[in-house]
Amino acid sequence: MKRILIKDLAKYLNKEVLIYGWVEGIRKLGKLKFFIIRDRSGQIQGVCDKDIENLDKLEKASVVKIFGKVKEEAQAPKGIEILIEKIEILNLSKAILPFEYYRDLSLLNLKLDMILDYRPLSLRNFKIGNIFKIQAGIVKAFRNFLEKNDFLEVHTPKIVSSGTEGGSQLFKVEYFDKIAYLAQSPQFYKQMLVGAGFERVYEVGFVYRAEDHETSRHLNEYLSLDLEMGFIKDENDVIDLEIKFLKYLFKYLKKEYGEILKEYNVELEEIKNIPRIPFYEAKEILKKEYKKDFPGEDLTPEEERLLCDYSLNKYGTSFIFITKFPKSIRPFYTMPDENPIYSRGFDLLYKGMEVTTGSQRIHDYDMLCENIKHFGYNPDNFKFYLEIFKYGMPPHGGLAIGAERLTCQILNLKNIREASLFPRDRYRLVP
Amino acid sequence: MKRILIKDLAKYLNKEVLIYGWVEGIRKLGKLKFFIIRDRSGQIQGVCDKDIENLDKLEKASVVKIFGKVKEEAQAPKGIEILIEKIEILNLSKAILPFEYYRDLSLLNLKLDMILDYRPLSLRNFKIGNIFKIQAGIVKAFRNFLEKNDFLEVHTPKIVSSGTEGGSQLFKVEYFDKIAYLAQSPQFYKQMLVGAGFERVYEVGFVYRAEDHETSRHLNEYLSLDLEMGFIKDENDVIDLEIKFLKYLFKYLKKEYGEILKEYNVELEEIKNIPRIPFYEAKEILKKEYKKDFPGEDLTPEEERLLCDYSLNKYGTSFIFITKFPKSIRPFYTMPDENPIYSRGFDLLYKGMEVTTGSQRIHDYDMLCENIKHFGYNPDNFKFYLEIFKYGMPPHGGLAIGAERLTCQILNLKNIREASLFPRDRYRLVP
Repeated sequence: MKRILIKDLAKYLNKEVLIYGWVEGIRKLGKLKFFIIRDRSGQIQGVCDKDIENLDKLEKASVVKIFGKVKEEAQAPKGIEILIEKIEILNLSKAILPFEYYRDLSLLNLKLDMILDYRPLSLRNFKIGNIFKIQAGIVKAFRNFLEKNDFLEVHTPKIVSSGTEGGSQLFKVEYFDKIAYLAQSPQFYKQMLVGAGFERVYEVGFVYRAEDHETSRHLNEYLSLDLEMGFIKDENDVIDLEIKFLKYLFKYLKKEYGEILKEYNVELEEIKNIPRIPFYEAKEILKKEYKKDFPGEDLTPEEERLLCDYSLNKYGTSFIFITKFPKSIRPFYTMPDENPIYSRGFDLLYKGMEVTTGSQRIHDYDMLCENIKHFGYNPDNFKFYLEIFKYGMPPHGGLAIGAERLTCQILNLKNIREASLFPRDRYRLVP
Repeated sequence: MKRILIKDLAKYLNKEVLIYGWVEGIRKLGKLKFFIIRDRSGQIQGVCDKDIENLDKLEKASVVKIFGKVKEEAQAPKGIEILIEKIEILNLSKAILPFEYYRDLSLLNLKLDMILDYRPLSLRNFKIGNIFKIQAGIVKAFRNFLEKNDFLEVHTPKIVSSGTEGGSQLFKVEYFDKIAYLAQSPQFYKQMLVGAGFERVYEVGFVYRAEDHETSRHLNEYLSLDLEMGFIKDENDVIDLEIKFLKYLFKYLKKEYGEILKEYNVELEEIKNIPRIPFYEAKEILKKEYKKDFPGEDLTPEEERLLCDYSLNKYGTSFIFITKFPKSIRPFYTMPDENPIYSRGFDLLYKGMEVTTGSQRIHDYDMLCENIKHFGYNPDNFKFYLEIFKYGMPPHGGLAIGAERLTCQILNLKNIREASLFPRDRYRLVP
């Protein structure tokens, strides 16, 4: 007999079916036993008037195989229930649950640490588990969109000989008799692969930042959605592509994940255009509109929030591109702007948080070597990266989207750890 | 003016076009200049009767922007050429090429070390670059197939607190004030996610093996195509799924990558069924058919070759599943067979090489704890993994396919490094 998923049971009214799942509720009413059964697709009520062997051992969360008949039942949550003929116990639950994961999340009142300490169990809560269905959807949309735009998927090494941003924030790896590092970004490799003739490449993979501080927006291991493209005019080609992607993504999520968005009370905006505000103008806006004078050469979280607020009020979108960041705070491979104080680097902010960093890159070999020196590094340490720049590197640029951040901002989650299956931070190395 | 890809030029006969690309050939014939231009999609001959500024600087591999008209030309390789109106140099090649990458690979006679040392440049050779188009196709097929079978894509940490196979072959990471390791496999995590209610999960990600030895079939960082599924009867459900996947994959590759397969002289077999031979029978076959008595408890590369040879002769397929491996040589989470000397672990061999390892896993908490002890480890070190087994873990199993190995075997490559963009081995940490 073929297994039927719970979500499909309505199609089998008055038929004999086989289902597998977890027992999430047990109630006795005289000779009748009521069960809530769940599988990956949903929940169903089961009712049984027969004697069940080992019923007293059947704790909640046990795994069962059930034969029964699908019946209409007006009082059951979905108008159907399963009349159980036989329950076979596949694996008993052997300990008291640390929390009743199957209850409504708002009633559970779980602390984040509890959710993360018992990650597999908390994922059984459909609302929590759905975060990762949306995340898988974001990744799928990223790939689909780029494949349609003729990008090639690549996989570049995470064990590397040097950092992309000069050597800070690197995790050290004992690599046989050498010291290696975990890649902070696939930056060098994706550029090299543009130069390798692929022109357009993308990668979905983990990157590593040994940032010592604990915040609600940083992970030490995060999923980076990276792309790099050759033969651009300038960074605006990269921005144009990202806007197209975001339009595609939001349509895709509305179509495929409408129920989850509803569960999270999210209405995704219809993206038309997204403003591009140069860094120095953004600082002016903050002064003028918010009476705030932020002296720093970068944007603080507060500035990011205010600029998104500004964009929402003025342009009706929660997104805003900040362009032409100061050259001094962007990595050495960033193309300088016409005004050499600035660069062709940009960030995309969404609902108050940076979710993308990108830029046009330097494609001229000599300029790149000069800039490496200008930043205080030795070009000899980057030989493997620089090599292809000698043999015709096209003008190019790219970006990286933080998958967990984007997931957070879409679902309005408060802490980035909620959007990582098994987050790694300063103190968390398990599960 | 919109850029046209070289592969699409035939559609623009007698029209003005803009193309971008690399110069891969320059020849002067009186007042005429002939060029070979290449972009990511292919090559075209260009001819110019005008004076070109800086022509003397235009070395091969330089990056150009070309305006011209598409013309029929019977003598040109594809029956068309481009009559160049204007060449704009976007980036000059600045050094003598270490090898003429654009030549026929069989004429280049490149050593593997040269190919890998100059990886981005060697990838410009279409035949070498195409290895990674096929590889991207394999990964795409893996995902497509599993999505259709309701698997959820997941991303699990690569920085972990302990090894999945007990602690050998682990790369150490300095993780703040702790010692962590690079994941040898997503094994624990994919099992936990089956138990998390997702039931069916897959991951495409790097895994790390600190194997000290250098062989043509091992990488220290390789791309693992992992899946894990709940509610199976036994390991045969996993094998059934893999056979379906392989059928899907081969059809997909023939359809989408026919030209590359032809370039590599590969004719993919039509997979009907793949034999499943228990380990002890395989050893008998080797004795009887090949007069070879291999005493070891595992299979040597020679045994793998002979068994594939046997399968080809007897069953007409280059694949063979070896099932019921001895329990002692499989990881502790492997489900024992009815005969407790053996396990429910299997390998898939293809053209003489192991490309998949899989098994049914132990789902009973007590049995798993016992087995951990039996293997000489302390269950306390695996608490984070064992936790979910207390609360109803369904019967489950899974497998891992080595993406580079499968790529190698499909294209008949000799060394696994050829199928890794930037391979990591004992001595190779760059590029």
